[in-house]
Amino acid sequence: MQMDHHRTEPDSLSPWSWERASPRTDMAVEARELAEAARQSLRGVREEVEDVGDVRVSRIHVQTRAGERLLGKRMGRYVTLDVPKLRRRDPALQAEVSRLLAAEIRALADLPEGASVLVVGLGNEHVTPDALGPKVVERLFVTRHLFRYVPGALGDGYRTVAAVSPGVLGVTGIETSEIVQGIVEHVEPDVVIVVDALASRSLDRVNASIQISDTGIQPGSGVGNKRKAIDAKTLGCKVYAIGVPTVVDAATIANDAMDLVLSQLRQNAPGNAATELFDRFSSQEKWQLIRELLEPLGHNLMVTPKEVDEFIDDTAEVVAKGLNLVLHPVMNEDTAAQATH
Amino acid sequence: MQMDHHRTEPDSLSPWSWERASPRTDMAVEARELAEAARQSLRGVREEVEDVGDVRVSRIHVQTRAGERLLGKRMGRYVTLDVPKLRRRDPALQAEVSRLLAAEIRALADLPEGASVLVVGLGNEHVTPDALGPKVVERLFVTRHLFRYVPGALGDGYRTVAAVSPGVLGVTGIETSEIVQGIVEHVEPDVVIVVDALASRSLDRVNASIQISDTGIQPGSGVGNKRKAIDAKTLGCKVYAIGVPTVVDAATIANDAMDLVLSQLRQNAPGNAATELFDRFSSQEKWQLIRELLEPLGHNLMVTPKEVDEFIDDTAEVVAKGLNLVLHPVMNEDTAAQATH
Amino acid sequence: MQMDHHRTEPDSLSPWSWERASPRTDMAVEARELAEAARQSLRGVREEVEDVGDVRVSRIHVQTRAGERLLGKRMGRYVTLDVPKLRRRDPALQAEVSRLLAAEIRALADLPEGASVLVVGLGNEHVTPDALGPKVVERLFVTRHLFRYVPGALGDGYRTVAAVSPGVLGVTGIETSEIVQGIVEHVEPDVVIVVDALASRSLDRVNASIQISDTGIQPGSGVGNKRKAIDAKTLGCKVYAIGVPTVVDAATIANDAMDLVLSQLRQNAPGNAATELFDRFSSQEKWQLIRELLEPLGHNLMVTPKEVDEFIDDTAEVVAKGLNLVLHPVMNEDTAAQATH
Amino acid sequence: MQMDHHRTEPDSLSPWSWERASPRTDMAVEARELAEAARQSLRGVREEVEDVGDVRVSRIHVQTRAGERLLGKRMGRYVTLDVPKLRRRDPALQAEVSRLLAAEIRALADLPEGASVLVVGLGNEHVTPDALGPKVVERLFVTRHLFRYVPGALGDGYRTVAAVSPGVLGVTGIETSEIVQGIVEHVEPDVVIVVDALASRSLDRVNASIQISDTGIQPGSGVGNKRKAIDAKTLGCKVYAIGVPTVVDAATIANDAMDLVLSQLRQNAPGNAATELFDRFSSQEKWQLIRELLEPLGHNLMVTPKEVDEFIDDTAEVVAKGLNLVLHPVMNEDTAAQATH
Repeated sequence: MQMDHHRTEPDSLSPWSWERASPRTDMAVEARELAEAARQSLRGVREEVEDVGDVRVSRIHVQTRAGERLLGKRMGRYVTLDVPKLRRRDPALQAEVSRLLAAEIRALADLPEGASVLVVGLGNEHVTPDALGPKVVERLFVTRHLFRYVPGALGDGYRTVAAVSPGVLGVTGIETSEIVQGIVEHVEPDVVIVVDALASRSLDRVNASIQISDTGIQPGSGVGNKRKAIDAKTLGCKVYAIGVPTVVDAATIANDAMDLVLSQLRQNAPGNAATELFDRFSSQEKWQLIRELLEPLGHNLMVTPKEVDEFIDDTAEVVAKGLNLVLHPVMNEDTAAQATH
Repeated sequence: MQMDHHRTEPDSLSPWSWERASPRTDMAVEARELAEAARQSLRGVREEVEDVGDVRVSRIHVQTRAGERLLGKRMGRYVTLDVPKLRRRDPALQAEVSRLLAAEIRALADLPEGASVLVVGLGNEHVTPDALGPKVVERLFVTRHLFRYVPGALGDGYRTVAAVSPGVLGVTGIETSEIVQGIVEHVEPDVVIVVDALASRSLDRVNASIQISDTGIQPGSGVGNKRKAIDAKTLGCKVYAIGVPTVVDAATIANDAMDLVLSQLRQNAPGNAATELFDRFSSQEKWQLIRELLEPLGHNLMVTPKEVDEFIDDTAEVVAKGLNLVLHPVMNEDTAAQATH
Repeated sequence: MQMDHHRTEPDSLSPWSWERASPRTDMAVEARELAEAARQSLRGVREEVEDVGDVRVSRIHVQTRAGERLLGKRMGRYVTLDVPKLRRRDPALQAEVSRLLAAEIRALADLPEGASVLVVGLGNEHVTPDALGPKVVERLFVTRHLFRYVPGALGDGYRTVAAVSPGVLGVTGIETSEIVQGIVEHVEPDVVIVVDALASRSLDRVNASIQISDTGIQPGSGVGNKRKAIDAKTLGCKVYAIGVPTVVDAATIANDAMDLVLSQLRQNAPGNAATELFDRFSSQEKWQLIRELLEPLGHNLMVTPKEVDEFIDDTAEVVAKGLNLVLHPVMNEDTAAQATH
Repeated sequence: MQMDHHRTEPDSLSPWSWERASPRTDMAVEARELAEAARQSLRGVREEVEDVGDVRVSRIHVQTRAGERLLGKRMGRYVTLDVPKLRRRDPALQAEVSRLLAAEIRALADLPEGASVLVVGLGNEHVTPDALGPKVVERLFVTRHLFRYVPGALGDGYRTVAAVSPGVLGVTGIETSEIVQGIVEHVEPDVVIVVDALASRSLDRVNASIQISDTGIQPGSGVGNKRKAIDAKTLGCKVYAIGVPTVVDAATIANDAMDLVLSQLRQNAPGNAATELFDRFSSQEKWQLIRELLEPLGHNLMVTPKEVDEFIDDTAEVVAKGLNLVLHPVMNEDTAAQATH
């Protein structure tokens, strides 16, 4: 018998590709950084960086199949807002990030005035760092039922917005993409916006970055991963994705710690003997050590700041406010904030 | 502009039919009691009552259209477990009620050995007395993904179970029945079981009764109620419903208080003058007074015990354990309890 | 054996004086209204009313023992902010109420620049409408430890603030006033501010009023109430109280419903016979009916709006922001809000 | 100005001694293992290990000052229950651990029949892995108020039990030991039992071990740690402590990862050159690397399993049930479980 259903739940937050024995990242900007660090030519990838006050906006365009292979990211546009000071919980900066987020979504997405939008909050509401999507959905100003059942309740400047949190496979027993497809077939939105918590390669970005993309959600491509994409192809309409890194995998921390030691030793190494030593230390060996280290608690180990509950609430507020602003042109900062309460 | 979206949300818990200016009940056993109190003949309605320890089991069968009109309840079978002592939170009694619930579902529902089942938890997870459905869903032993993605993980004696909490119209903007239909079309279960919090006519039954029926969920029939049924007709498969009364509407309390005073006065009344007085006091007038009384906070006022949070958690546990027992024949009390944690 | 400890817990929210068989109120402004409605002379009670935008500020001064007996409120000053629109959740109005609250506390309380303050959040964090006090405490900008352990961390304009939630008798087994006394003896604050959820006589005020007083917290004076006061006498320093009505007792609703019917009948009554009838209907009789009506769930029954969770969070935010503003003169609206997140 | 009060909150969960640049452990059994691994003689320390089904019981007695220095643990008795299978959430095993815990507390602690007991739940209720203490306190069968205010409510076999959650310094602004002292002076218990979440050196023990000791709580001895002990000396009565490891510090994981690589390299090293290389790699250097690695999110980084919420709830239930059993001799498993709900 198998009661321990938690072990069999695919871990949507894991940034570690257990098949490839290497950290993987959900963020295009990190994939670009890794590629650059590996001194790879970035053909097929265009990037533009702009600093707006305390926010760095990186706009990456994966233009070709070659770029796709290079970054491991589907062809399309990825915009990242990096805001290290977001963790200081300054309300003025939070408001500014909501505004910037609205502006970047407006620029990236094609949202006609009369478009009807379905927002999908992915993740498990009862696992704090995975709850971002459902928490954003709760804070949206949802209007579809008002347009239908209370005609005249809303004036001009509101779009038709619906919002759902489909839950996760381990709790529902149903592939999330199946649930979303079923709902889309009934609601028939023009646009779907998917919100999800991501895993980051780097502690710097945890609760301090927001990624927008026009590619939808692509599951990892590893062996055994049977999850389906949530994108234009599977849903039959435009799909945008908003992601916020909320954890780093413990395996990534362990990996980075090992790499730091190795690179430090390499610098101090006196000669060829040592170099040889390190060359013999394969990534397979390192990977074996990490497995050994983390084995007792398995691959669901995450590294989070102690204040993770507060950070998630704050970030959900920032994202929801940005979405309210961009979805309902008549809303201003006050009414958008009011709706998110 | 209309920001106050809470006011426009149809209130799934309200037992008060604002159109008919009279309390309505979600429970067949109460409808039967009301009809009896009104000295109506109960043709077309069969009832059988059995006391099992501290539990009274009432099995009502609405057999004809006449019975349907009489009770205001769709033709079909309704089983109620009344357990006044359930509020004492005695674990032995809770376990007993889970077992009885499993037995009554088994007797009422046609669940072939290989049947696949979708459990739907209705209600708003973030409104305590409405959260019963979602809280039951969280505690189920869900297996559909294990059968699909981890073949061999489970031995014999498990059915294919999936479970979802579709949210409420006021939060999603989408008619709940639409979401459920979309999911059913993809999951294709043989049987759907819907779990919902009910409103009771009577404080006696709050957190102390469980109703099972084979009729699905029928929305109130009042003017302006645009909600669709969740039943065999709309979903295309068998639909069973489990309901637990968790609140009484404040209007019901006010109504009962007024009736008590009136009946008391009537008893004390000296002669015809007084009778005339009361006869002139129409139900419309009473209704007007109730409106006046509750007006400041509108029709979303509910009466709950202070300990409502604990009662809801306990009852969700009892129902989930009963469902685990009946859905997975191999489960015993311990493993069913383990899954509900 | 007595396991059902919830029944033995004194109910801090109950506005119903079960000894006097009549509704009692925690709010001076309501006591004043009741006295006025009973056409009592208001000697010894001064009142001043001011409308500031959407807020009505009532300042009541109970000046003599006669006034004390009249209102059932200890001699002292009581300021009430009535804000019916607060329930609309408008952020601009919420900010305005925080500012007004800060101004009224500043006017009422004697807070020297260097005063050290202990804020005490009364109530049960796990019973939604009773959780106001603890929720305010969580949102305060607490500084006492910073002054002690991180000297220089704070600039000028901050007072020494500590804050505790002592829990409730039914959970701790300890009289709340004993816990507060023990803490006060160690912390030695100059001023204590107690925050508590109140019961209102009237639905109008639920989540729409804030009362400030300089009298501390006085328990009900009924037979059998063994709870001690939390005031200057028991704590040995100035004690101010902030209260927000969050519920109405179900008995109050029932009582009001009965009174409404009776007064309606009296108006319609044709002559002496009826008058006699009503005169014979004593308050004792009414009280007996209410008991009968609510008996199954006892005296812990409360009437709340369905959205009680959201209202409590909002109100806690408003009160905490007001307190941050008045306790730390250097704070402005933004930094006060930031601290409350 | 310093708004970021989270940074200045001493981190009660951190197992990393930032002063000594080395991991520290809250658990005597781990200190003993470390000492043994370092091949130190264990004079002054007695240990006894017993396997009871799936539970390993280690009873360590630090008997001399030498033993105290060796383990960095105060003289006294430490009992650890190691239950790797506890994470499988098997109700039969959970019940067994509650029984064993009760038996070990009974053996360790001197609890006369008429003793009055105060249980103190340390930690921050709003930070999941730190919430163990408050969650245990909520589930205790508290009786002190019943003995006082409802004489005769309880039969024989109950002790006088009170329970408080004093909060944490960063939220209250008050040293926890001061709050506890103030309460103890008013409640005057014969015995205090402190319950706290611990940090472990090892992932093996997270949510899978319980430590009992008769030494109370000793804060870390590092420079700058101004926290006071909660023990017999500060409280003037017997103090027992129950601790459950709920996190591992991210710095510990990083440290272990580095050590693993170094030891692996050392094994493969060809000769003296390499040995020299490693010898030059000082612990100070390693420490510098860890700091660099974790710097962006500071020393509040913890490693937890994704399911931390469920594990904490389960463990709180196990501990509370054990405490109910040992504090109230008349309770059996059912009534102890009932009280913990």
